[in-house]
Amino acid sequence: MLLAALEIDVGRGLLETLADRFHESLEAVALIGDEHVLDIHPLGFDPAAVHRVPRGEAAKTPAVIEQLWKELGLDRHGTIVGYGGGSTTDVAGLTAATYMRGVRWIAVPTTLLGQVDAAIGGKTAIDLPDGKNLVGAFHYPARVIADPNVLATLSEAQRREGMAEVVKTGLLAGRTLWELEDEAMIRACAAFKSAVCLGDPFDQGRRAILNLGHTFAHALETAAGYQGLSHGDAVALGLVAALRLSGRPTDVVEQVLDPRPVHVDRERAWSALGRDKKALGSEIRLVLLGDDGPHLTSVDPQTARASLDELIRD
Amino acid sequence: MLLAALEIDVGRGLLETLADRFHESLEAVALIGDEHVLDIHPLGFDPAAVHRVPRGEAAKTPAVIEQLWKELGLDRHGTIVGYGGGSTTDVAGLTAATYMRGVRWIAVPTTLLGQVDAAIGGKTAIDLPDGKNLVGAFHYPARVIADPNVLATLSEAQRREGMAEVVKTGLLAGRTLWELEDEAMIRACAAFKSAVCLGDPFDQGRRAILNLGHTFAHALETAAGYQGLSHGDAVALGLVAALRLSGRPTDVVEQVLDPRPVHVDRERAWSALGRDKKALGSEIRLVLLGDDGPHLTSVDPQTARASLDELIRD
Repeated sequence: MLLAALEIDVGRGLLETLADRFHESLEAVALIGDEHVLDIHPLGFDPAAVHRVPRGEAAKTPAVIEQLWKELGLDRHGTIVGYGGGSTTDVAGLTAATYMRGVRWIAVPTTLLGQVDAAIGGKTAIDLPDGKNLVGAFHYPARVIADPNVLATLSEAQRREGMAEVVKTGLLAGRTLWELEDEAMIRACAAFKSAVCLGDPFDQGRRAILNLGHTFAHALETAAGYQGLSHGDAVALGLVAALRLSGRPTDVVEQVLDPRPVHVDRERAWSALGRDKKALGSEIRLVLLGDDGPHLTSVDPQTARASLDELIRD
Repeated sequence: MLLAALEIDVGRGLLETLADRFHESLEAVALIGDEHVLDIHPLGFDPAAVHRVPRGEAAKTPAVIEQLWKELGLDRHGTIVGYGGGSTTDVAGLTAATYMRGVRWIAVPTTLLGQVDAAIGGKTAIDLPDGKNLVGAFHYPARVIADPNVLATLSEAQRREGMAEVVKTGLLAGRTLWELEDEAMIRACAAFKSAVCLGDPFDQGRRAILNLGHTFAHALETAAGYQGLSHGDAVALGLVAALRLSGRPTDVVEQVLDPRPVHVDRERAWSALGRDKKALGSEIRLVLLGDDGPHLTSVDPQTARASLDELIRD
């Protein structure tokens, strides 16, 4: 069992040779791919080894994973390749975590969000009716392969989802990563996240800094019922709040992500903030940026409430 | 995340105070219990915290685990208690491994097999139509609580299931563990297995010795279609073969487990032996007992075939 090792290959054209890499090896491979991504970026794998899953979040269900378990037919020495956005790599990774008590897997993210964030860090999950990511496991991919060429077919909205995490990562790292060309940007973001995760593989400590902006974001998404507010736009708003509470300018976030206050129920958002996973008791725990870098800190409820309200329009 | 720590409590009457232990703590608890065991040995847990699963192997299905995922309602600081035989602790452990990316769990095995073997070692699993334990995870219980009093209601057949593993453990340990009183016997077997497992938590090396007798046993069970031959009786036959191939007397197994050759198809059994997980290529890998203890070794196919045939009657 691989606990937390990770090799990340970032390069243009990597997808063109992906199938050949596996044809040359003797290991059995099953490709779990987003059906839409497989249609627009076919990889040339043996069709018998390809398992198509619904596009995006619709793949993250118990029914899909049960079907995959039944179809795979690998032995414990096999490898699963997850090919698609963050939802696809989530379900492929959880399938790998649970099949035969854990088989090796390789993440091939095809969205900017997947390449800079979602496919890095060993978290895998599916959803339940009660909430997202309620079922999952920590199961690190042996390798992450990211080809920036595939990003050319992303919509502007999909790209914004990824850029929100790029800005977050740049703020954490103290570097203007959002100004880099895609390949360098992906490499830098993936390297930063994997370094943090490998130092805290099961999310019990330092890794909490990756939640910069996400506590407010989750509260807004919950208040919106996960409709009409993308995760990226919610993170952009959350970053604005985190920067304000840190006493820092918000111009970078404004320029790159153009966040707009959202129309949601203020009480629902406040209530959701109190239920965030980082809240213990009545204090609000937030990641803020200090002179020595990011840190988790307590913010008094009135101040947090005022910051949250600034993100909401009536 | 607890990787491979394990505390084992063995004692008469432990079940009587189990519910009180949890009432006194503030942690949220969900009890996953075999419905039959809950009926004959109720524990006094708050009914809202009790999740009944079908008796025995019938609980090890995707449908049961999906239902548990939806019912549990714990947060990530909650604890799952698995209460029943090896099948129940298997499904409870896998539920704990996958709920919220892994919550703490406590195994409370109620069969001799569970107390001396199945609940120890971190393996959790459910079955698929294609085979047993095809979906699972390594997720060690924080604690195993074994009350020998509960064994009084076991059938003779259920007790034999456990005794086969007791004899195996005694042969591996070089001690006549099967002669001990239940409480001491359970304590010794659980301690031996946990020591081996903690030295090889993900079953990649030394732990293979625990398969003593099991390679032949699995071949016989497969040939029998998992019907008409209990796992314990199959292990007893497998231990006879392993002792013979080790050049050792088989009288202990004969006296304690009384194995009888079984009527199965010889070719099916031979074919199943070749497909055992420890077989690589054409050689047959078996755990045998040497002067320095158990070791994994290669046996030539003719010799293995002859040993297998001795376990089968026409």
